[in-house]
Amino acid sequence: PIDGQRLWDSLAEMAKIGATAKGGSCRLALSDEDKAGRDLFVSWCEAAGCTVTIDRIGNIFARRKGHDDSLAPVVMGSHLDTQPTGGRFDGVFGVLAALEVVRSLNDRGVDTLHPVEVAVWTNEEGSRFSPPMMGSGVVTGVFTLDEILDKVAQDGARLGDELVRTGYAGDAPVDHPMHAYLEAHIEQGPVLEVEGKEIGVVTGAQGQRWYEVTVTGVEAHAGPTPMRLRRDALVAAAAMVQAVQRVGLETAGDPCATVGILDVHPHSRNVIPGRVFFTVDLRHPNADTLADMDRRFRAAVAAIAEQNGVSAEIADFWHFPPTPFAKPLVDRVREAAGGFGFSHRDIVSGAGHDAVYVAGKVPTAMIFIPCEDGISHNEVENISPADGARGAAVLFETLVATAGK
Amino acid sequence: PIDGQRLWDSLAEMAKIGATAKGGSCRLALSDEDKAGRDLFVSWCEAAGCTVTIDRIGNIFARRKGHDDSLAPVVMGSHLDTQPTGGRFDGVFGVLAALEVVRSLNDRGVDTLHPVEVAVWTNEEGSRFSPPMMGSGVVTGVFTLDEILDKVAQDGARLGDELVRTGYAGDAPVDHPMHAYLEAHIEQGPVLEVEGKEIGVVTGAQGQRWYEVTVTGVEAHAGPTPMRLRRDALVAAAAMVQAVQRVGLETAGDPCATVGILDVHPHSRNVIPGRVFFTVDLRHPNADTLADMDRRFRAAVAAIAEQNGVSAEIADFWHFPPTPFAKPLVDRVREAAGGFGFSHRDIVSGAGHDAVYVAGKVPTAMIFIPCEDGISHNEVENISPADGARGAAVLFETLVATAGK
Ligand SMILES: NC(=O)NCCC(=O)O
Ligand SMILES: NC(=O)NCCC(=O)O
Repeated sequence: PIDGQRLWDSLAEMAKIGATAKGGSCRLALSDEDKAGRDLFVSWCEAAGCTVTIDRIGNIFARRKGHDDSLAPVVMGSHLDTQPTGGRFDGVFGVLAALEVVRSLNDRGVDTLHPVEVAVWTNEEGSRFSPPMMGSGVVTGVFTLDEILDKVAQDGARLGDELVRTGYAGDAPVDHPMHAYLEAHIEQGPVLEVEGKEIGVVTGAQGQRWYEVTVTGVEAHAGPTPMRLRRDALVAAAAMVQAVQRVGLETAGDPCATVGILDVHPHSRNVIPGRVFFTVDLRHPNADTLADMDRRFRAAVAAIAEQNGVSAEIADFWHFPPTPFAKPLVDRVREAAGGFGFSHRDIVSGAGHDAVYVAGKVPTAMIFIPCEDGISHNEVENISPADGARGAAVLFETLVATAGK
Repeated sequence: PIDGQRLWDSLAEMAKIGATAKGGSCRLALSDEDKAGRDLFVSWCEAAGCTVTIDRIGNIFARRKGHDDSLAPVVMGSHLDTQPTGGRFDGVFGVLAALEVVRSLNDRGVDTLHPVEVAVWTNEEGSRFSPPMMGSGVVTGVFTLDEILDKVAQDGARLGDELVRTGYAGDAPVDHPMHAYLEAHIEQGPVLEVEGKEIGVVTGAQGQRWYEVTVTGVEAHAGPTPMRLRRDALVAAAAMVQAVQRVGLETAGDPCATVGILDVHPHSRNVIPGRVFFTVDLRHPNADTLADMDRRFRAAVAAIAEQNGVSAEIADFWHFPPTPFAKPLVDRVREAAGGFGFSHRDIVSGAGHDAVYVAGKVPTAMIFIPCEDGISHNEVENISPADGARGAAVLFETLVATAGK
């Protein structure tokens, strides 16, 4: 029911903005590149006859009128921002598949009962500004607007100022009404590809706990300070990085444990590091197991600090519990995939998505498509055009079934 | 023979420039603060009747005429630049003790046979610009002038441009003649304090090998990427940091092994690090043992890379072999200390100093004084006024004996 070539061409066009050396994309949230990507998306929506609204956190909603336009819209969407060395499909696929659904509704003259919207959520990645999923978090009341406007980027910029600078400080209120929410996304992991499945029917997302750890030792000269007298914050932090890895390796089910940022102070070749800051990201589909990982992580950090004569502080930075999606909507995704004869399986999302926050407010479902070698958050991230078209077709069917005629 | 109070007051005055929150100093090489420190020093030298010359690498030489002014000068000196969170004595003590010697020669109307000079060497610390000991390295032919002028700082500035900007791009040639070189310095380690010795008679410096290591893995999403499929550059680098520590702990004698800088790429909380850069600093007084540490370090990095499915490249960054000082001059330092009745011991320098490079060209010796808790490269670095005065007195005696009457 959709035009796979048109979708593929739009993905290629968007990928020109913030294109990186190795074929990926860098459109950090509210950077010049993100603005350019948003502008292109808005121009496409207007060409498709949609009315575009920007809310106070910079989320974009492109609306196609419904038969009964007083009803809450069925919203499809995802995000256009990327990681620093991100791929061409993470987020973008969900946005442009949704746009392709709207274009196809136009082509076929389908008049849905509910209005239909395509949403672009602000800063899903959580890289330049952290935590992730800010736009959807504000709309669903997880965060207050003011706390998010005041977030400061790794590069020192304030989020509220960057919204103004890029022209996306809109005036629509952030309590956007929604009847239901659908998000198509690349899997970002290897499961569908390994099992040869065309569609992932996402039943929910695993829980996440993010932390910030600060290790404090004693700065001293790397030359005349005997090894036994040192309180090297980096030697201790290195043991903690390995402990985080062990928490991941020694947990049953599908655990994840990652240190993505580590900063050394004072950052001089001949000074024993006096302070190290690092971030930790723990994930598990099961709440009890995630709580157990949390306990083991904390105990390991405390023990390593003690052994190394340093102190370590753990701050809770962000978390969400394992989040199930709406069963009737998930069933509808499975039926749509089956109706087309696509091979499919149920799957739990390893990543957080805007859908996770939206699921706390309105019925929500997600559609996964395979990505090459399961690689994501990497410039070489890739999908096949046929997989993209299948995902958009399932989105079309699910949307029409949900928005009604 | 010197005025301990005047020396202490000058140290306190200099410490006001680039003063840090915890009582230390931040005068990174060729920063605004370094320039202000140099300007103050030059004004003091001119007030003491010296002629000041700047060479093309920014070294400052303040000259007090000799009885036979055609003879090569006996040079005393050290450096005014500091670490990012440095102390008030590392380098500064040697410069201002030398100035105090000149002031005392003036007070006493001593007419030395050789001219006497106080040298301030450019960028000894090697923190903002690396490697260390650049000014003395250019004067002694270890580095070419052009390669050093082209060095780029951590903050992106070019050394040659910073010399011009701060007004220290002098025109004197860099092959400065010297009859002998004497450097007073804080020990920067705990030996003198622990043994209750007032003066360290420095017989030479331990050898150093500095490296840069780049670990390359595969960036991937911290969520849906199973633990067993990861090629996490940081997990591997953390094991390497611990291996460097083991090389230090498992070597006999007085080994040092330090990782001072470690940078993670792409530096995002939810991306498995694809690349890590870190620096390594290995030291030992014995050349064969240092070579053995080098071998063990390389073998450990290669084995860890292999185990973790990542690649690791080691680049040699800087090195100097264990360097003995000139025996007759060292004997003279020991005699001067003994002559005053100061308790003393022979000691090998754990740090590199400008004296190490100068020792390759002219007879060289160093005088160490204790520092509190052996702590250096730290804002809390401290000495007692009495120890400072004793060090300057030994410098005075050794200088007079070397410069002749
Ligand atoms: N899809 C995605 O990368 N979301 C960001 C939040 C997360 O790391 O799970
Ligand atoms: N004294 C001193 O800190 N010198 C810098 C070179 C080194 O780290 O040994």
